[in-house]
Parts: sequence; structure tokens; C-alpha cells
Amino acid sequence: MIVVMKQGASQAQIDHMVERVQSLGLKPHVLVGVERTVIAAIGQERPEQKEALESGSGVAEVLPILAPYKMASVEVKRDRTVIRAGSLEVGGARVGVIAGPCSVESQQQILDCAHAVKSAGATALRGGAFKPRTSPYSFQGLKEQGLKFLAAAREATGLAVVTEVMATEDVSLVSEYADVLQVGARNMQNYRLLEAVGKSPRAVLLKRGPSATMEELLLAAEYILDAGNPNVMLCERGIRTFEAHTRFTLPLASVAYLHAKTHLPVVVDPSHGTGHTYLVPDMAVASVAAGADGLILEVHPDPEKAMSDGYQSLNFEQFANTIARCRKVATALDRVM
Amino acid sequence: MIVVMKQGASQAQIDHMVERVQSLGLKPHVLVGVERTVIAAIGQERPEQKEALESGSGVAEVLPILAPYKMASVEVKRDRTVIRAGSLEVGGARVGVIAGPCSVESQQQILDCAHAVKSAGATALRGGAFKPRTSPYSFQGLKEQGLKFLAAAREATGLAVVTEVMATEDVSLVSEYADVLQVGARNMQNYRLLEAVGKSPRAVLLKRGPSATMEELLLAAEYILDAGNPNVMLCERGIRTFEAHTRFTLPLASVAYLHAKTHLPVVVDPSHGTGHTYLVPDMAVASVAAGADGLILEVHPDPEKAMSDGYQSLNFEQFANTIARCRKVATALDRVM
Amino acid sequence: MIVVMKQGASQAQIDHMVERVQSLGLKPHVLVGVERTVIAAIGQERPEQKEALESGSGVAEVLPILAPYKMASVEVKRDRTVIRAGSLEVGGARVGVIAGPCSVESQQQILDCAHAVKSAGATALRGGAFKPRTSPYSFQGLKEQGLKFLAAAREATGLAVVTEVMATEDVSLVSEYADVLQVGARNMQNYRLLEAVGKSPRAVLLKRGPSATMEELLLAAEYILDAGNPNVMLCERGIRTFEAHTRFTLPLASVAYLHAKTHLPVVVDPSHGTGHTYLVPDMAVASVAAGADGLILEVHPDPEKAMSDGYQSLNFEQFANTIARCRKVATALDRVM
Amino acid sequence: MIVVMKQGASQAQIDHMVERVQSLGLKPHVLVGVERTVIAAIGQERPEQKEALESGSGVAEVLPILAPYKMASVEVKRDRTVIRAGSLEVGGARVGVIAGPCSVESQQQILDCAHAVKSAGATALRGGAFKPRTSPYSFQGLKEQGLKFLAAAREATGLAVVTEVMATEDVSLVSEYADVLQVGARNMQNYRLLEAVGKSPRAVLLKRGPSATMEELLLAAEYILDAGNPNVMLCERGIRTFEAHTRFTLPLASVAYLHAKTHLPVVVDPSHGTGHTYLVPDMAVASVAAGADGLILEVHPDPEKAMSDGYQSLNFEQFANTIARCRKVATALDRVM
Repeated sequence: MIVVMKQGASQAQIDHMVERVQSLGLKPHVLVGVERTVIAAIGQERPEQKEALESGSGVAEVLPILAPYKMASVEVKRDRTVIRAGSLEVGGARVGVIAGPCSVESQQQILDCAHAVKSAGATALRGGAFKPRTSPYSFQGLKEQGLKFLAAAREATGLAVVTEVMATEDVSLVSEYADVLQVGARNMQNYRLLEAVGKSPRAVLLKRGPSATMEELLLAAEYILDAGNPNVMLCERGIRTFEAHTRFTLPLASVAYLHAKTHLPVVVDPSHGTGHTYLVPDMAVASVAAGADGLILEVHPDPEKAMSDGYQSLNFEQFANTIARCRKVATALDRVM
Repeated sequence: MIVVMKQGASQAQIDHMVERVQSLGLKPHVLVGVERTVIAAIGQERPEQKEALESGSGVAEVLPILAPYKMASVEVKRDRTVIRAGSLEVGGARVGVIAGPCSVESQQQILDCAHAVKSAGATALRGGAFKPRTSPYSFQGLKEQGLKFLAAAREATGLAVVTEVMATEDVSLVSEYADVLQVGARNMQNYRLLEAVGKSPRAVLLKRGPSATMEELLLAAEYILDAGNPNVMLCERGIRTFEAHTRFTLPLASVAYLHAKTHLPVVVDPSHGTGHTYLVPDMAVASVAAGADGLILEVHPDPEKAMSDGYQSLNFEQFANTIARCRKVATALDRVM
Repeated sequence: MIVVMKQGASQAQIDHMVERVQSLGLKPHVLVGVERTVIAAIGQERPEQKEALESGSGVAEVLPILAPYKMASVEVKRDRTVIRAGSLEVGGARVGVIAGPCSVESQQQILDCAHAVKSAGATALRGGAFKPRTSPYSFQGLKEQGLKFLAAAREATGLAVVTEVMATEDVSLVSEYADVLQVGARNMQNYRLLEAVGKSPRAVLLKRGPSATMEELLLAAEYILDAGNPNVMLCERGIRTFEAHTRFTLPLASVAYLHAKTHLPVVVDPSHGTGHTYLVPDMAVASVAAGADGLILEVHPDPEKAMSDGYQSLNFEQFANTIARCRKVATALDRVM
Repeated sequence: MIVVMKQGASQAQIDHMVERVQSLGLKPHVLVGVERTVIAAIGQERPEQKEALESGSGVAEVLPILAPYKMASVEVKRDRTVIRAGSLEVGGARVGVIAGPCSVESQQQILDCAHAVKSAGATALRGGAFKPRTSPYSFQGLKEQGLKFLAAAREATGLAVVTEVMATEDVSLVSEYADVLQVGARNMQNYRLLEAVGKSPRAVLLKRGPSATMEELLLAAEYILDAGNPNVMLCERGIRTFEAHTRFTLPLASVAYLHAKTHLPVVVDPSHGTGHTYLVPDMAVASVAAGADGLILEVHPDPEKAMSDGYQSLNFEQFANTIARCRKVATALDRVM
């Protein structure tokens, strides 16, 4: 931690901060500069220390040196985490492909989807049974019935099931049916839910909140890891910016950044990340080129009739074409898909 | 709803969309323009309709005409909602002042705070017992013990208690002790929690998520209203932008905007909205001038030793001075404080 | 400057950076931490140094300690700069009020405006003669003719004239007619223009670019100061964020922040800062409460017929009412208006 | 244009707006809805009309239907524009590669760069002679001397020269030496400069401003096209968002979006778009996969010693490896590189 004093900070203020640094268990080094003094605080950093030092009188700024996440960090575990959940593998040479409708709408719909996406190359099936919706008046999902339809589709196709869990009280129910529990973007900092999925035996797909920093995303993952579940895949699904021609802005540099900071695999969601069907294929291909460990894509038999997210869903043909192009890129870059 | 067709959309595509509009229970009017055709869809709009129309072939854009929230809208209820919860009133002529520490740390700390903020003009006491923290390694709050300390402080001072509830399973417990349930920014779209507080008899302070649009905030309020609780106060606490010299960017135009769109009262949080003690007083004064129905401020007996948020907390003297300045502005603008 | 090495950086990398620090004229202090090493580089910081150190091998991050602007900084000049340009004063006890139409449209229009805003309390007249417009097909201003109309309005009312200059080749022409040269938001980093107005004898109103950081704004001011012109007033006019209910997001915390960092006065523009007439009055009042040294407001005799920006212009009555409310707040806070 | 009236707008207000619509040369259609009335205004839309209608009394919103740019639009010219400037081609099957140092530093440096990037596959040489710098105290470029060094490097290698022009007064000078004039991000809305390069015989590389919308970018291009220069390549170089782990956020969906809206070619700049050398290669590969017509990359013989932008420059080996990977992806997707 580096405590930067204000220009003109008094000796008493400096002395006081030196004491504060010591009282937090860190070792202070005072460096008197040309224009101001800084105190380097050497030792094991903890998030509270920064907060505690920032409010000191005469302090201009406190600059942390270490990342606040530990278990998620490459500095703690250098080899990449490979997650296997039924038919799905992410984090190794193979690019995982999770595909399916936004919402499970009927047994037939999810079965059709499962067969179609599998034959086009998907390695897992997605579908929402519990749906978080911005408006209380929108379709909220088929709930347990939807989970049963998903399980039946797995039975029929062998595809692992990825589905969202919205609340702690549903974790055990959803864990009965799902192979991977999805924590949605709106719940990325719902800490009770993170702790609850951290105690589940299922792998977790943790979506980045639309205004979450990378550090917040990794700290959210840290909650899950800390609760005992090592199988966390991170999902970049776009951030909120001033851009209005896409629903969210999809920053693919997240993939390389996360690969440099964490051993956890990174999945990209070009459906939410663009919000428009016509932009999804190119961004799916670009995601693979950017090094994504997996893709998650919304696919619907008839997007125009979808009960949710039709405007960003691919139909079966579009999905098959997209995967074919992704596969070419994966192969060119010595990956498997 | 206005369905804008792409330039060069075929007659078949236009006819198809006319049918789609009818099938959704809306009445289509086709307007053939110089460069493209638009279909006005007249009737009762619902959020699903926009989604359903957007995915149509040949459609360039769908422009909604009505706000998707109803119960929160001034178009449904024109007179301002005044909320009274113990000593706190917001929404009327009086500017409510909710003040206290970020976290309840001890009986003494919260009692000292309560006395100090009351004597300086606060009309309610804030303090966190359940703390959502970005890092799993940070202090997580005293939980029920903290609630008891808050209740004791209310006993001693008569100040209403405002405190956060993080999870559905805690709503009834927190409702036993609190006068106002706070839903934090990270939980603004935790719909289960919104439904649960919507069934509580307590008033709710709903904080805007850092990347929530006004529409999303009002739809979150709509969840609570729709569940049966009419006492929702909205809280502007800053948004996430590229600005790094403040923790969040506090957009005070939200106050006038919300007053034009909703009958619900609007509280402003200059502590989180700036993230730095030295910026809080001016922004508190500006919030009152901007028409805020209330303020929520972090106050700590010794910010440097606070277990959380010390860098943005006022000490007792700073708080008293800030309220004195706010009161002058309120008086000048014919409000009571 | 603090050079933070990567965890596991080799001794050779550390030694190399120590040399690099020395070669830049700074004195290195190596601090070996528990998890990584940092090198404090003490001396006179310059922007190039940060860049030069960041690309070093084994370097994780370079944290600057000093602000890169000098002449604009309170650390160099502690007393506030008061700027006087004809009838306009900003930076002292009096709140300056610059008002008038977006564009000068005719002699009559600008004269009517000048009389109306003066009688309501304006201390300077604004009006665009050279108009930067997003579309090449929009009205581009009356150019020199507009400047003459402005000068005639000054003649008639005594109000100082504030008007935009868009290009270096126009600086001397505009300087002949104007009391204050406005550098628009789109030109905040047009460095040639900054240098040119820096050589003009006129005061400068420098508008913040919609995505400029505070540091970039102050460095833009530094260009003008460095060219020899000490009379720079900074103007907060809103930033671009994800918010779509306002044209820009107006962050009033900029005022207190800038007052803490620079001696230059700060003017706020609630017209561009909100983009909607109905939001302007409350934000003007809030700006005064936030400590603004001046306001700049768009006023038009008949906003509905304005050739530009009618949607965010006040008519004469709205302006007079707004100033009356601002004045009450100014008085309550011991300022003059 | 769709004029949406407020709920409860009076008949007089509606009648007034119908007249306003007619007076602007548009044909009004009044549609009385369940909750409010909208007036569709059919005819040739112009930007001023929206502004003129928005300020009308009783108007809630004005929704434009047509894009405000014309010459840049695919609706006006359907076949893609292919630009050839010496050795550089963008917009056809071949992916253009513009590479070189941020700043021209010496004859040797630019010659070395030119040879190295050419042999690795670059089709044009970049290098700044006039440098817009955030701080007045940073290196500002070698100016005409730098242009001469660039021309000499073209002589030696055959590579077309791409270099920035910062001011109208330099356009003819830079046009003498350069094959492509770059308009930098900070100058995207410097309209005089756009007009000046619009009159030059050289092709133009127009960089997106960091907070420019796609519409603003296309309107900036429209200024150049309207001035008579059809050879405009657009450049996505990242936008300013809350993300701090990259210097800018690079939204690759811009490529597919722009390809759907305009016939102009799209170049991507992963150097500025990420701001960190280690993120550049993956984002370059992803840009090609996303369909970019060209790349522009910063390459320096010894990034650690670069006079600017060293932290985001590739060295020769990194560049060669990056291009080799890009080429594999291009080939896989049936493009040439």
C-alpha cells in the first residue's frame, strides 16, 4: 500500500499516518519527495487497510499494490482450471458451446432446441426456468416445470444443462436438475446467492454485472471459491456504456485480461453482449479468436415467437452457420471445437 | 408502438408485420413515407410486444410510446406520495434527513451517532447490520446484534431506523426492528427480494443500481408496488461512469426527472454519490437545492476508525455544519428542514 | 512515481528498472514487500516518465504521485483566480450569469435577448456566431455578421459578449468582437486552438469535453496558461454516460473537486448538461448551491422557433424565474448574484 | 418523424403541432391512441426538424425514423467502397495492415520500422509527425522533418504513408507527403478540419472519438464526403467507459454495425483500443475475425525507449507473430492478408 500525503502535509500528519500503518500490521517506509511525502506500507495487504488509511487527515490518496482477490488469482494457482460438467468442458483446448433458448417455453421447444444445437456442435444446453425480468409484467419462466423439461432434454441428447438460479432458496432445487448453475448479471453481487452456490456441488457460470469492474467480478468469484466450490467459469456478457446501437458493449479484451489475472475459464455471451441477432455471428467468431474458453448463445426455433429475447436469438440455421465459422477460426488457431 | 420498417422492406414483410401487430391485440396503421414505411400500433402497450415485434423480418426498429411502469407513474397517480415511518417523513414539504454510520459497530457507537445526528437535525437513523461487501474478506456486519443496537438507539432518541436487508430470508427479521427497509444498489434487480419487501409492512428505500436506467429503477419500484407495498422511496446514489476522481458520478438531474415521471419521493445519497468526505457537504447542499425529498448521509464519530466507508463519512461537526447549510437553502426555497 | 513490479519479477528486471529510473533523473528506492517489490522514484515527475517506465519488462503498473498540470494547480497558486471581462466577473463572491441564445439569428433576436437577460440579472451575453454542428446539413451560424450583432447588443446593454471560436484562423477576428472566447466541448483537445486562444488578450471559457477526465480538462487549461493567457474559466457542461433520459449527465461534484485542485473559476452549463428545458431550472439552482462561480444558460425569445437547441432553451420568463430562485440560494449561502 | 404527445395534451396543443409539422414541409397523420396521441410526420426528414418539434408545448418526445447521414449510408450507395492509396487497399477482400511507431523519432527509427513491418506483412506505414498530446509538456512530434523521414521510408519500402493532420493550416503540407491523412480521435468533431481534409486529394482515416456515437462518427464522415472526398475509412479505436483495466474499451461489434449501415471501410486500432501491449495481439486477431477491413497497429523497435505510447506498442517480433496469427484467421474466413 502506498499512502500519498497531500502537498504541505504537516510532520504531525505524517507521523500520525506512520503510526496508523504500524497499527494495521504493516511496516512503514517514509519517502520524502521533492514536492510531497509518500509512505510505503509493506506487508500483507487487506481491503480494510486501504479504507482505514484513506480517511486519514493529510492523506491525498492510497494506492493498493496487490489485487484484493486471492484464490481466483494466477499468483496463487498458476495452471488453468479446467471445468467438466457432463458433456461440457471449458478451460482446456476445446471451446465449450452452450446454446439454447432464453426461456424454456415447452417440452417440445426445448427438445427441438437441444437436438438442433447438439447436431450443430453445442456441448451444453442453456434455457431459463427461473427468469429475472426487468418488468414485473413480463413472463417469469416455467420454474420447476421448466427444470424438468431441461432434464428430459438432457436425457434425450446427452447435453449438460446450464440454467439460472435466482435465489438462495432455489439453489438445492435447481442443483437437482442442472449441471451448471448460472448466476445472472443482475445477481453478480448478490452475496448470499454467491455463498449458496459456493456450497452446491454444481459448477457455476458467473455472469459479469453490466457495470462491474474486473476486480469486482473476480471478488464475486472469490465468494464462491471461498465457500468451497472451485468450479467457477466467468462470463463476459457486455457492459453498460453510452453506446445505444447495441444493448450492451461487449469488451473482448476481457478475455486476455482475465487469462492474465486468473486461472478460471472465461465464457463469452455475444447474444446479450450485442442484443441484436444480426451482430451475434461476427461477435461469436471474434470471441473465439480472442481466446474465449467457451461461448453461450441464445438459439430459438422461431425467434419471432420467442417469449423473451427473440431480438437477439439465432434460429437453427443461423446457429449452425455461426458455429461452422467459429470452428474454422478455432482450427486455424489450434483449438478444438 | 411504432414499427419502423427497413428501407426497401418488401410488401410481404409489411403485411406480415401488420398481422403480427393485430395478433398482439394492437391496431395497425400503415404510414408509407418517402423513404420507408412505418406501422403505428395503437392500443394498450405491454413490454413483451416490443420484444415480439423487434425480431420480425424487415423491421429496423420498434419505438415504444408508453412508459412500461404503471403504478409508479404520475400518469396513474398524480398527487405526490408522502411516506411517514416513525420520525421520518419524505415526500412533503419537509426534507427528510437519514444519517448514521455505514456499519453498526457497537452499542456505544450507534447511540453516540443517534444522539449527535438527532441534535444536528436528522429525522432518521441509518446503520448497516447486514453488510453487502465487495470482498468476502471484509467486515460483514453484526447482523441481528446490530439490529438490536439500532432498536435501542431508536428507543433512546425517537429516531426511525433505516437499515439494509440483503436477502428474502431476512426480511421478516429486519422488519421486526426497522422502520424502513433499505434495498441496496447491488440488489436493485434482485426480484425475489423486491417481492419480499413488497409484502412487508415497512416502508422501503430503494437504491438505484450504479448502471440502472431510470426506467429500470422505476420498474424495480413497480415490483414492490405490485406486491402490495405503496411506500417506496427512490434513492439516487450515483452511477458508474468513466470518471475516476469520484467513486460514482452523482447525477442530480435525476431528482427533477423522477418528479416529472413518478409520484414516489426521491432521496439523494451524497456519501456514496461522491465517495469522498470533502465532496459530500457541497453535494448535500446541491441535492436540497435540486429538490430532493430527503438526504441519506454517512456519519461516524471517528471516520478514520470506521470499519467501513470511513473515506466518505462525515464526523459530527462536519455533519452539523452541512445540515446548517442545507437548512439555509431549504428555507430560501420555502421548504422545511 | 511508484513502479510496481509483477509478482515473481526477476532480480535482473528489478535492477534494470532501477537503472531506468536513474536514467530519467529520478532517485530510486527499492522496497521489497511480502509478495512483490516496488520501486519508489523520487524527484520531479514529468508525464513522459510514466510512459517510459510502464513499458519496462516485469513492470505491473506505474502509479504517478503528482498531478501532471502545474500552472493550473492550487499547489502552485493558492489564491483563487478572479476573471473580469467587461461586465462579467467570475471567481469572486459574485456568481456570474452568462445567458443568451444558442445561435445569433438576427439583430433583433440578439438585442431582445440581451435586454431581457440583463433585466433578469445576467452579467454577460452568450450567442453563437460560428456554430459547430454534428451534421453538415444543420445551420452553421451567421459568422462575422453574427459577431457584429453581438457587438451591437453589447453597445446597447453593456453586457460582455461570450462567443465560441472554432478554429485558429478565426481567433483574431472573434477577439475583435468578443470579451470572452469560448472553446467548445468538441474542441477541448484541439491543441492548436488552445495555443491560439492562449495568445489572445481575451479571457477564455473552456468547456469540458463530454468524455474528458478532470485531469485532461486541467491539462487543456494548462495549454492555454502555458501560452501566456492566465484568464481561463473552466466549464462543466455534462459528460457522456449510459443515461439516455438526459442528453448528458451533469456531475456537479466537479465544482468542489476543481475548487480543491485548481485556482481557476468554474462555470456550470445546465442547458447542455441536461438537454431538456424542464430540467434546467432545478439544475441551475443546484449549481449555485454546489458552489459554481458562474452559470451559462441558453435563453431564446421563442424556443420553439430557435434555429438550434430550442429543446433546452429557457424563454424569458423561465429565465427570470430561474435566476430569482438562484439568487435566493446564493444569498442564503452568503454569495452575491 | 414521430411526434409523441404527452398524456393529457390538449386538443389545442395537438392542433398546434399539426400546423408545425406542416410548416416544416412534412405531412402529418394524427393517431389517437388509448393513452396518448402521436403525430406521424411523413416526408423528407432533416435534423433541424427534430429540434424544431421537440420544443413544442405538449410534446413528450420526437422519434426520428431516418438516419441523419446520407452520403455515408448504405441506403444511398449499396456497394462497398474500396479505397486504394499507394500500397494500401481497404474495403475489399484483402485486410489492410497499417503499422509503425506512434511518433516518428528519427530517420533510422522509421526506416527500421518500415522494413520490419513490411517484411511481416504490413501494407502501409504509420507514424506521427504532428502529435496531439494531452499535456503541453509532452513530446509534440518532429513536424515537417518527420514527414520527410516518412516519405523517405516510403521511397525505401514502397509502403504507403498514413500520418495525422491536426490543423487546417497543415492539410496541404501533410498532403504533400502522406498517402492517407489521419484525423485523430480528439479531432473527430473539428469540423473545419473535416472540411479541409474533405477538399484534399488524399484518402482519410477518420478515428472515432472516445465518446462519439456511431451516428456522430458517420456524420463526421459525412462532412468529409460532402466536401468532395469519397475516400474515407472509419477507424474504431475504443471508447471511454468505466473500465479502468484497459485505457479504452474496444467494441468490436462496431465493425458489423458499420458494415450494416455504411459502405465505407472499417479499420480497427487494437493498440489504442486496449492501451496495453499484452492485450494487443489477441484483440488484433479478434478484429480480423470480426470482419475488420484493416488493422492499425503501433510497432516500435524498442518500445521501452519509445518517446510516446511505448506501453501499447509491439516490438518487431510481437508484430510478426500477431500478423501470422491474424493471417491464419483471415485465411480460415476466406479473406486475404
